[in-house]
Amino acid sequence: MNEPIKKIAVLTSGGDAPGMNAAIRAVVRACTYYRIECIGVYRGYQGLIEGDFESLSARHVSNIINKGGTILKTARSLEFKTKEGREKAYKNLKKAGVGAIVVIGGDGTFTGGLKFIKEFNFPLVGIPCTIDNDIYGTDNTIGYDTALNTVVEVIDKIRDTASSHNRLFFIEVMGRDAGFIALNTGIGAGAEEILIPEKNLGLDRLVESLNKSRERGKTSSIVVVSEGDKIGKNVFELADYINENFPDYDIRVSVLGHMQRGGSPSCFDRVLASRLGVAAVEELLDKSTGIMVGFTNKKISKVHLDKAIKMNNDINKELLKVAEIISV
Amino acid sequence: MNEPIKKIAVLTSGGDAPGMNAAIRAVVRACTYYRIECIGVYRGYQGLIEGDFESLSARHVSNIINKGGTILKTARSLEFKTKEGREKAYKNLKKAGVGAIVVIGGDGTFTGGLKFIKEFNFPLVGIPCTIDNDIYGTDNTIGYDTALNTVVEVIDKIRDTASSHNRLFFIEVMGRDAGFIALNTGIGAGAEEILIPEKNLGLDRLVESLNKSRERGKTSSIVVVSEGDKIGKNVFELADYINENFPDYDIRVSVLGHMQRGGSPSCFDRVLASRLGVAAVEELLDKSTGIMVGFTNKKISKVHLDKAIKMNNDINKELLKVAEIISV
Amino acid sequence: MNEPIKKIAVLTSGGDAPGMNAAIRAVVRACTYYRIECIGVYRGYQGLIEGDFESLSARHVSNIINKGGTILKTARSLEFKTKEGREKAYKNLKKAGVGAIVVIGGDGTFTGGLKFIKEFNFPLVGIPCTIDNDIYGTDNTIGYDTALNTVVEVIDKIRDTASSHNRLFFIEVMGRDAGFIALNTGIGAGAEEILIPEKNLGLDRLVESLNKSRERGKTSSIVVVSEGDKIGKNVFELADYINENFPDYDIRVSVLGHMQRGGSPSCFDRVLASRLGVAAVEELLDKSTGIMVGFTNKKISKVHLDKAIKMNNDINKELLKVAEIISV
Amino acid sequence: MNEPIKKIAVLTSGGDAPGMNAAIRAVVRACTYYRIECIGVYRGYQGLIEGDFESLSARHVSNIINKGGTILKTARSLEFKTKEGREKAYKNLKKAGVGAIVVIGGDGTFTGGLKFIKEFNFPLVGIPCTIDNDIYGTDNTIGYDTALNTVVEVIDKIRDTASSHNRLFFIEVMGRDAGFIALNTGIGAGAEEILIPEKNLGLDRLVESLNKSRERGKTSSIVVVSEGDKIGKNVFELADYINENFPDYDIRVSVLGHMQRGGSPSCFDRVLASRLGVAAVEELLDKSTGIMVGFTNKKISKVHLDKAIKMNNDINKELLKVAEIISV
Repeated sequence: MNEPIKKIAVLTSGGDAPGMNAAIRAVVRACTYYRIECIGVYRGYQGLIEGDFESLSARHVSNIINKGGTILKTARSLEFKTKEGREKAYKNLKKAGVGAIVVIGGDGTFTGGLKFIKEFNFPLVGIPCTIDNDIYGTDNTIGYDTALNTVVEVIDKIRDTASSHNRLFFIEVMGRDAGFIALNTGIGAGAEEILIPEKNLGLDRLVESLNKSRERGKTSSIVVVSEGDKIGKNVFELADYINENFPDYDIRVSVLGHMQRGGSPSCFDRVLASRLGVAAVEELLDKSTGIMVGFTNKKISKVHLDKAIKMNNDINKELLKVAEIISV
Repeated sequence: MNEPIKKIAVLTSGGDAPGMNAAIRAVVRACTYYRIECIGVYRGYQGLIEGDFESLSARHVSNIINKGGTILKTARSLEFKTKEGREKAYKNLKKAGVGAIVVIGGDGTFTGGLKFIKEFNFPLVGIPCTIDNDIYGTDNTIGYDTALNTVVEVIDKIRDTASSHNRLFFIEVMGRDAGFIALNTGIGAGAEEILIPEKNLGLDRLVESLNKSRERGKTSSIVVVSEGDKIGKNVFELADYINENFPDYDIRVSVLGHMQRGGSPSCFDRVLASRLGVAAVEELLDKSTGIMVGFTNKKISKVHLDKAIKMNNDINKELLKVAEIISV
Repeated sequence: MNEPIKKIAVLTSGGDAPGMNAAIRAVVRACTYYRIECIGVYRGYQGLIEGDFESLSARHVSNIINKGGTILKTARSLEFKTKEGREKAYKNLKKAGVGAIVVIGGDGTFTGGLKFIKEFNFPLVGIPCTIDNDIYGTDNTIGYDTALNTVVEVIDKIRDTASSHNRLFFIEVMGRDAGFIALNTGIGAGAEEILIPEKNLGLDRLVESLNKSRERGKTSSIVVVSEGDKIGKNVFELADYINENFPDYDIRVSVLGHMQRGGSPSCFDRVLASRLGVAAVEELLDKSTGIMVGFTNKKISKVHLDKAIKMNNDINKELLKVAEIISV
Repeated sequence: MNEPIKKIAVLTSGGDAPGMNAAIRAVVRACTYYRIECIGVYRGYQGLIEGDFESLSARHVSNIINKGGTILKTARSLEFKTKEGREKAYKNLKKAGVGAIVVIGGDGTFTGGLKFIKEFNFPLVGIPCTIDNDIYGTDNTIGYDTALNTVVEVIDKIRDTASSHNRLFFIEVMGRDAGFIALNTGIGAGAEEILIPEKNLGLDRLVESLNKSRERGKTSSIVVVSEGDKIGKNVFELADYINENFPDYDIRVSVLGHMQRGGSPSCFDRVLASRLGVAAVEELLDKSTGIMVGFTNKKISKVHLDKAIKMNNDINKELLKVAEIISV
C-alpha cells in the first residue's frame, strides 16, 4: 500500500440507522475535497462480492442528509462469511482500482471488516452507525440519538391515551443486548418502570413497584421494556403475568418495532455522521487501517476494530439511580 | 324543559381521540360566552353515576387545545348499561342543577346517550369524536384526520428501513369495522397493497399482486392491513401465509396500536372540534336534543342520534380505484 | 383532437406547495395505468418554452409522495406572458408528440393555461395546488391542509415561550388576498386575536380586545395576522402601534415566511393529490379541456378554469363567530 | 448553615428553554425522594422578591417532562439587580424556612445568583438551561439539543421550497455571542454557507463562495446566519448587499426567532435535565454552594459559578473544517 489512494469505496451494512445517508454524503464529499474518487457499493458486503459499484459525485449525495435509510441499501451477506466470498470482494475492489474502504454499520459489519483486513491487508476504516449504541470507543453511535427521539415521541402519544383511560402499558423498545434505548427513553418519557437486561429486578420487584404506584394514586402507568430484557419472558408474557396479579388493571402492550430504525436524523446525528465521514476518509489518507473512528469527550477519537467489537459500554450507575429517583 | 338551561354538563366517553380536549374547551367557552355554567364530568358515564363533577371556567381549559387525550378522562361504564346506573346518573344531574348535557365520543357513547334520553327525556347532544370515522352524519369525526397523519408518519419511517433492506412489511392499523384509516393511509403512504374489511380481495389476489410487484422489480413493499380485515386471518397469520408462498422474502410485521389514538391534534381536528363544541351548546340552547352535530359539505349539520349510529359511511369507490391505479 | 392521446405532459408552476410531488406521481401513474406516456416538464411554463422535457416512468416517482417541494421544479415565466413565448411552448409540445397537458398550481398557472388553450386549442386540465386555498371550485387546494399544520405546530412552540414570559406575540402567516390560513390557524392555535383581510376590525377594536384580555388576567397573548391584512400596516408597524398603547407589554413579532410552503404533506393532501392527479388524466382521456379538477362535498368535481380564477371563496361567517366565541 | 436543609426552593430565570420543566420536575422529585420539601418560586428572581411561592409535590410535576416552556414562568428582574431587591428575596426565603435554592437558567441567572450568595451566604446551585450552549463547565446546556432539532426541521422545509424555485435563502438563527446553533444546524441542514461571530469571513468571501456554488451548478443555496454574526450587517442588509452583487438571484430572508425557544424537549434534553435536577439537589444536601452542575465527558460535573460565567466555550476547529469540506 505504498502508492497513494486514488479511489475510496463506501458501503452500509447490517441493520439500517438514521444518519447512514449523512455519513455516506460526508465520505463522498471528503473524497471530492481531497480530490479522490468515491465508489458507492450497494447492499453492503454482498454488493462487494457482486461488484455492484457506482461512482459517486458530490451531486449524487445532494439533499440526502435529512433522509432516513441508506441510498446504498444494506443487507446481511452470508457469502461474505466464507473465504470464497471475501476473495471475490477483494478481486472486485482491486479490479475497480479501489485503494481503501469505509464500512458504515455496527458489530457485524466490523467483524466482517476485520476478517477482510487480516486476509487481504486491505485498508479499511469503520464508522459506527446503529441505533443500539452498543459499540465501544465512541460516546454515541450514529442513529442512536434519533431513535431515542422517535421512541419518546411515540410514548408521549401513548401516554395521552394511557392517562385518559387509567391504563397500564407495556412498551417494548429495541436493544437486544443493551438497554440504552430503554433506560434513556424510559427516563425521557417519564416511565413508571424500566426493564433492561443490565438490571434484572425480577418480577416480584415489578409487582411491588406497581403496588406502590397504585398506593400513591397513580392510575396509569408506562413500563418500558427492552427487547433483550433478561426477565425470562417476552413482553406479552410479562403483561399476562401482571394481569394475573392485577386483574383489575386494564393492561395493553405495544411493540414499537422497526419504526425505530427510520425517520429523518436528528441534528446531532447529522453532525456526528458528517464529522465521522470526514474523519474516516482522512484516516485512510493518513494510512490508518483496522480502526473505527468515533466521538469521545467532544473530540474525534479512534479505536481498533477488535476493541470496538469486544468491549462493552456499561450502563451508567448514576443514570440507573436517576431513573429510580425520578419515578417516585 | 320549559325553563331556560342554566348549566350544561360535558363528558368524554369510549376510546379517546385527538381533539377531545379541543371539543371540551369549545363547549366550556361557548357556555361562558352564552353566560351559562359548564360542569365537567370525569370518566364518562361512570362519572355521571358517581357524581364526579367539577365546574369548569374558561381558565380551566387554557392551553389544552393542542393536547392529546382528554382532561376529563374517559371510561367504558358497565353500570350505565343498567337502568339503575342511568337513574343514578339522572339524579346526580338534577341535583347539580344541570339542564342539558354534551357527550363527546362515538358509537357506544351515542347508544348510551339515546337510552338516557328515552328514559329521562334529558336534553342531550352528541359530538362525534373517534379516530375511526365510522359515524354517519358527518364528513369527519374529530380525531380521524390526526390519526391519519400519525399513521403515515410512522409508515414513512418504516419505509426508510423497508427500502434499505428490500423487505416486505405488513402494517396493521386501527379500524375494527371500517377500513377508512387503512385505505387513506395506504394511499397516503404509497402502500403497494391495502387490505380492508370492505374489499375482500382474498389471499390469492394478494399473492398475485406481490408476484406482479416482484416482476416489476419492486424489491420492498408495504402492505397496510386494517385490524378488522375480513380475510379471516390476523396480521401475523397473514405474514406467515405469505412467507410460505414467498420463502425468499424478508417479511416483517408491525402493529401500530394505541399510538394512533394519541398526539397533538391536527389543525383540522382542532378547528372541527371548536366548531362542533360551539354548535352543540347552541343546539342545546335552541332546545334541540337527541341529535349529533356534524360537519357536512363544509357546513355544520345535524342528524338524529339513532341515524348516526345505525347508518354506515360507505367506502368511496372512486378512492378504491385511485388506490389501484396509484400502486402500479 | 380526434386522434387518441398518446402522451400527456405535466408541469408545476407558481409558488410551490406540499403535495405537488404527490400530484405529479399520481399523474405519472395514471398515465402508466392507462398505457400512455407521461412527459415531465421542468420549471413550469419556462421549461415548456425551452423544451426542458423528460419522459417519466412509475419508477421516477417512487418514494416522492412524502416529499415537499416539486421534483419538476417551478418558476414564474415572464416569457410565457408573451405570444412568442407561448408559441414556442406549443411547438415544443407538438414536436414531442404531446397530446395534452396537466398544469399543477394556482391562480397564475391557470391564467396562463387559459390563454394557451384559447390560442392553440391545446387540451389542458388544471390541478389546484397552493397553500392559500384561494381557488374557487374545490373545497381544498392541495397543500393548504399541510400549511395549516405547519403553522399551528410553530405557534404551539411560540406559545410555550410566550406564556413562560407573559409576552404578546404578533405572528404573520401567509395568505396575500385571503385570510384562510390566519383564521383557521388562529382558531387551531388558540390565538387571542386574528387579523384577516376579510374582516377589518380596525386598530381600536384590537386595542379594546387586548384591554379586555388583560382585565380577564390573560398575561400572554398570541395575535395571528394574515400578511394581506388590510389594517393598513404591516406586522412590525402594528406591533409598534400596540407598543405605544401598551408600553408595559413585552411585544414580539414573528414572520413565519417560506417554511409554510415546505414540509412533508399531510395524509389529507397526499390523498387529495392522488385523487386529483388520477382525475386530471381521466378527464383529458375523456376529451375534457379548460377545466380544473377539484374536490367538493367529498366527491371529485370540475369547474371551468375561468370560474376557478375569477370567483372567490368566502370566509365562512360561522367560522368567524366560532373564532370570537372561542377566544373569550 | 449547620442545621440540615428541610426545604429547597427552585426557580427558572432568563430566556426560557425546552427542558426547563423536566429540570423542575427532577428537582421536585429528588426532594421527595430525599424527604425534603420543595418550594416553587414563580417568575424567577422577581417572584423571590415578591414571595410568590408554592409548595410542589411529585404530583404537581406529573406529565410536564415533555412540555416546552416553564410552569414556574420566567422573567428578567430589574429589582433583583439592586441590593434592596436581593434583601427582600433573602427575607422571603428565610421566612418560608427555605434552606437552599436551585436556579435554572443561563449567564444572567448565575450572575444574579453569585451576588446573592456573596451577600447572604445562602446555599445556591445552578443548572445550565439555555438554548445557546454558551455556558462553560458543561458539554451541553439543557435546551440546546432541542433547539438544534427545531432549526434543522424548519430549514429542511425551507430547502423544499428553495430547491423548487432555485432560490438563495438567508436564514437567521439565535445565538447572540456564540455561533453554536448556526454552525451545527448549518452542517446538519446541509447549508452552503454558515456565518458565525467566531469566524469573520467577510463579505468578499461570501460573494466568492456563492460564485463558486454557481459555477458548480448549484441553483439554490441556504446561508445560515447567526444573529450575532460580526459581519457588521444584519441579515436583511446582508441580503441586500448580495442582491446588488447577484441581481439575477432570487433572494429571500427568514428570521426564525422565538420558535427556537419552544417545543417539546428532545430525549437528550429530558434526560440531561433529569440528571442535573437530581444532581443539584444532591449537591445542596452535600453542603455545596456557588456551583453549577453540568455534564462533561458523559459524567455529572461541577464548576464554580464565576467560572461558568466568565470562561468561554470555543468553537471547535475540527467542526469548522468539517463545515468547509462538507459544503463542496
